[in-house]
Amino acid sequence: MLFRQLYDQETSTYTYLLADEDSKEAVIIDSVLEQVERDQKLIKELQLNLKYILETHVHADHITGATELKKSFPNAKTIVHSKGGVECADIHSTDGMEIKFGKYYLKVLSTPGHTNGCVSYYTEGMVFTGDALLIRGCGRTDFQQGDPSKLYDSITQKIFTLPDNTLVYPGHDYKGFTCSSVWEEKKYNPRLANKTKDEFILIMNNLNLPYPKKIQESVPANLKCGNIKLSDA
Amino acid sequence: MLFRQLYDQETSTYTYLLADEDSKEAVIIDSVLEQVERDQKLIKELQLNLKYILETHVHADHITGATELKKSFPNAKTIVHSKGGVECADIHSTDGMEIKFGKYYLKVLSTPGHTNGCVSYYTEGMVFTGDALLIRGCGRTDFQQGDPSKLYDSITQKIFTLPDNTLVYPGHDYKGFTCSSVWEEKKYNPRLANKTKDEFILIMNNLNLPYPKKIQESVPANLKCGNIKLSDA
Repeated sequence: MLFRQLYDQETSTYTYLLADEDSKEAVIIDSVLEQVERDQKLIKELQLNLKYILETHVHADHITGATELKKSFPNAKTIVHSKGGVECADIHSTDGMEIKFGKYYLKVLSTPGHTNGCVSYYTEGMVFTGDALLIRGCGRTDFQQGDPSKLYDSITQKIFTLPDNTLVYPGHDYKGFTCSSVWEEKKYNPRLANKTKDEFILIMNNLNLPYPKKIQESVPANLKCGNIKLSDA
Repeated sequence: MLFRQLYDQETSTYTYLLADEDSKEAVIIDSVLEQVERDQKLIKELQLNLKYILETHVHADHITGATELKKSFPNAKTIVHSKGGVECADIHSTDGMEIKFGKYYLKVLSTPGHTNGCVSYYTEGMVFTGDALLIRGCGRTDFQQGDPSKLYDSITQKIFTLPDNTLVYPGHDYKGFTCSSVWEEKKYNPRLANKTKDEFILIMNNLNLPYPKKIQESVPANLKCGNIKLSDA
């Protein structure tokens, strides 16, 4: 499989490009508006046919590049989970759905808790966890329908039950890690390793994090698939 | 093979950790002093036996973590190319040398031009190019024995003759790319694709780049294997 991890330094966001090198069918996960020019160019250089534009959730820290990407790849379909509240998406995914590109597929795992519509995408050997599971951390649960009890269940019952050697590719990292594994996170994630649900909830309810800088512009724009003109109206 | 790409946001430097999951023998390429605590912790969590600390060259933009890493992993040996001028290195490598860890090896490819002692490290499917070849770019050639003619030969005769699908992992990236391939760089690198040596030299001699911020502290420290006390003396 052709695989590229891409990084937005300003928001520490990871975007992922996956493709079947034979059929050239490709998917992109969590694109960033400011990086669309870079990503469009790369997709064209790699001679790929962008089939799906996926989101792991409605982001609060950056605006998706979905609408801009569709200008260059008008046949690409946007996919967001049915509980994300993103009416403009071409396809609303549900738990267990398989998103096919060439001979590969990504399986939708509903992993709510950071937001209610959060999903992870799984294919053999890799899981893209968005802001549910981060490397040695996890997404915050103090806005956007955040719920630490749900997040604990999502991580422990959906992600931690994948094979131990599955590589974990998160939506963000702030320390320079690019990936982890299910084994590592089960063993070393300080919020989850050997923690009961009650202990996890206590940790999450006492993080006292600052309010995200871009939430006021990001969430309305992402609910409109990153179409800034519509979200301004 | 266990493989981790690590990033230092301040200097946009990539560090690479490679290991044999059976024997646990590991090597690290281009560690960064400020990230040693992160990397030591990761190596210990992954239960690896750090065998070699490799440099692609004497860096001008950051100080190597080699000396600090050896405090935690005293059996690890530092390896720098014989032309790097790093007398404190445990092993001075030469072109074609194979560095073994478990059932894997990295082959030293002498790729001078950015500095005289630059090497790339090749293993099947991957090449770690340091500052010789960057993604859609290459290392500058205007200090530290830089020589665009040598760099052109290194890239076109050593790196571009590797299999097309070899993934290129550079020493830095400033646009959020994490890897490329030999095929991509042959086809799309603006300084090299369809460029003669004379054209490349003209490009390199007209970059007019600012002087690196940290060169005055980095080069002397890296010539002492990152031992700041010795370089201050």
